Amino acid sequence: MADRKLILISNDDGIHTTGLHTLIDAVRHLGDVIVAAPTAPQSGKSSAITVMEPLRIYQREDYNGAKMYAISGTPVDCVKLALHTIVPRRPDMVIAGINHGSNAGNSIIYSGTMGAVFEGCMTGIPSVGYSLLDHSLDADFSETIPYIKDITERVLNHGLPKGVCLNVNFPANVAIKGAKVVRAALGHWTEEYQRYDDPTQHPFYMLTGTFVMEDPDPESTDIYWLDRQYASIVPARADQTATDVMPDITKLLQ
Amino acid sequence: MADRKLILISNDDGIHTTGLHTLIDAVRHLGDVIVAAPTAPQSGKSSAITVMEPLRIYQREDYNGAKMYAISGTPVDCVKLALHTIVPRRPDMVIAGINHGSNAGNSIIYSGTMGAVFEGCMTGIPSVGYSLLDHSLDADFSETIPYIKDITERVLNHGLPKGVCLNVNFPANVAIKGAKVVRAALGHWTEEYQRYDDPTQHPFYMLTGTFVMEDPDPESTDIYWLDRQYASIVPARADQTATDVMPDITKLLQ
Repeated sequence: MADRKLILISNDDGIHTTGLHTLIDAVRHLGDVIVAAPTAPQSGKSSAITVMEPLRIYQREDYNGAKMYAISGTPVDCVKLALHTIVPRRPDMVIAGINHGSNAGNSIIYSGTMGAVFEGCMTGIPSVGYSLLDHSLDADFSETIPYIKDITERVLNHGLPKGVCLNVNFPANVAIKGAKVVRAALGHWTEEYQRYDDPTQHPFYMLTGTFVMEDPDPESTDIYWLDRQYASIVPARADQTATDVMPDITKLLQ
Repeated sequence: MADRKLILISNDDGIHTTGLHTLIDAVRHLGDVIVAAPTAPQSGKSSAITVMEPLRIYQREDYNGAKMYAISGTPVDCVKLALHTIVPRRPDMVIAGINHGSNAGNSIIYSGTMGAVFEGCMTGIPSVGYSLLDHSLDADFSETIPYIKDITERVLNHGLPKGVCLNVNFPANVAIKGAKVVRAALGHWTEEYQRYDDPTQHPFYMLTGTFVMEDPDPESTDIYWLDRQYASIVPARADQTATDVMPDITKLLQ
């Protein structure tokens, strides 16, 4: 048993989702699988951690041989608490997903899926997030499976560069043409809120919005290739230091 | 009035904190100030966004000429909703803080303060976060004020490189010796949870932990210089793409 690879899986949609079950089934031939996933949906939770509230762990029934733990926190809480408390040995890989919805472009920074992945990455474990560009609960993940098997196996066998993890997105409801290693498209969101009036005539706001692509070189980005029916693979660093501009900042502040 | 600079301020400790008031007082001579800060503490919220819940805006009494808005969400929600709904014109700068507690090392990725700053940065507005290495509610911010005035004024006048924001941390309860432009120290957290048993003998867990420095070059990092009574200034990018390893990843997946 000690020679078998151990894979820790998390997600941000919660422990009862099709995307999570699909991911388990896609990788369970590669090693032992432990799942630590949120009890409730945690979309948009980024790398949030729970600092003032207690966290609880609930063991659920195994799923196709995978040990299943639901945790009352964020995706990062799940990875941290699993590494601290649940796993019998250090995992060989952390994977998250399959997210129901896109984490392409600058959505990576808001993504709970990628929060879990960055957390694994910062502890030195090769980590990959998988997302499908379809929010629906009954999204069709079948096209993603051969890509997930292949990428997970390669990363298990060869690792990733130090400090680097992968953000993999898949186009929805198409025959995927291939995979491209690309940058996250630069841009921002606009028209982000819809206003409502409550029964007492006080306003409240719900998040919505449109991504405005502002990338100077669109053809090197994830969104460009996802639009053209390719999977996108963005290598990403948890460390956000902009070392290249350190001399400029030093000059600015002198 | 249209010629006056406009500064949007947020934080993650909530609208009633000394750090926020100190920040307003430090920069209000530089322009008009609008505050959009969380109604309740939001430490550790990273770049989390509220996707399923309504957000509400509560106007509070002005503070020393600053317009004050409390928002029922995360720091990123505050910046997004302020830009969408509250500000009369595009702010010239987004600043966040002064955080009660450190955002040095890899704490930047969990930081709600820096979540607000990355959000400003992604919309193209020069953005800076300020943090003091003292969690206490009555922390002494006096030493930070000349640094905040100077950095904010320089950034207002000269801007920042495209896609780059600043994460400024100050040592606590010392005479600050100067400021260093540095990298975020690499490392991870360990021994992260304390276990308790509730009255029904079920366990729960509270976050704690120790930062393990793993940086190959400590003297170029924020934590090293903060330990030596310097302020640290880390230039950071919201875009986490690791462009330098894209050829390696392409080879790995071929």
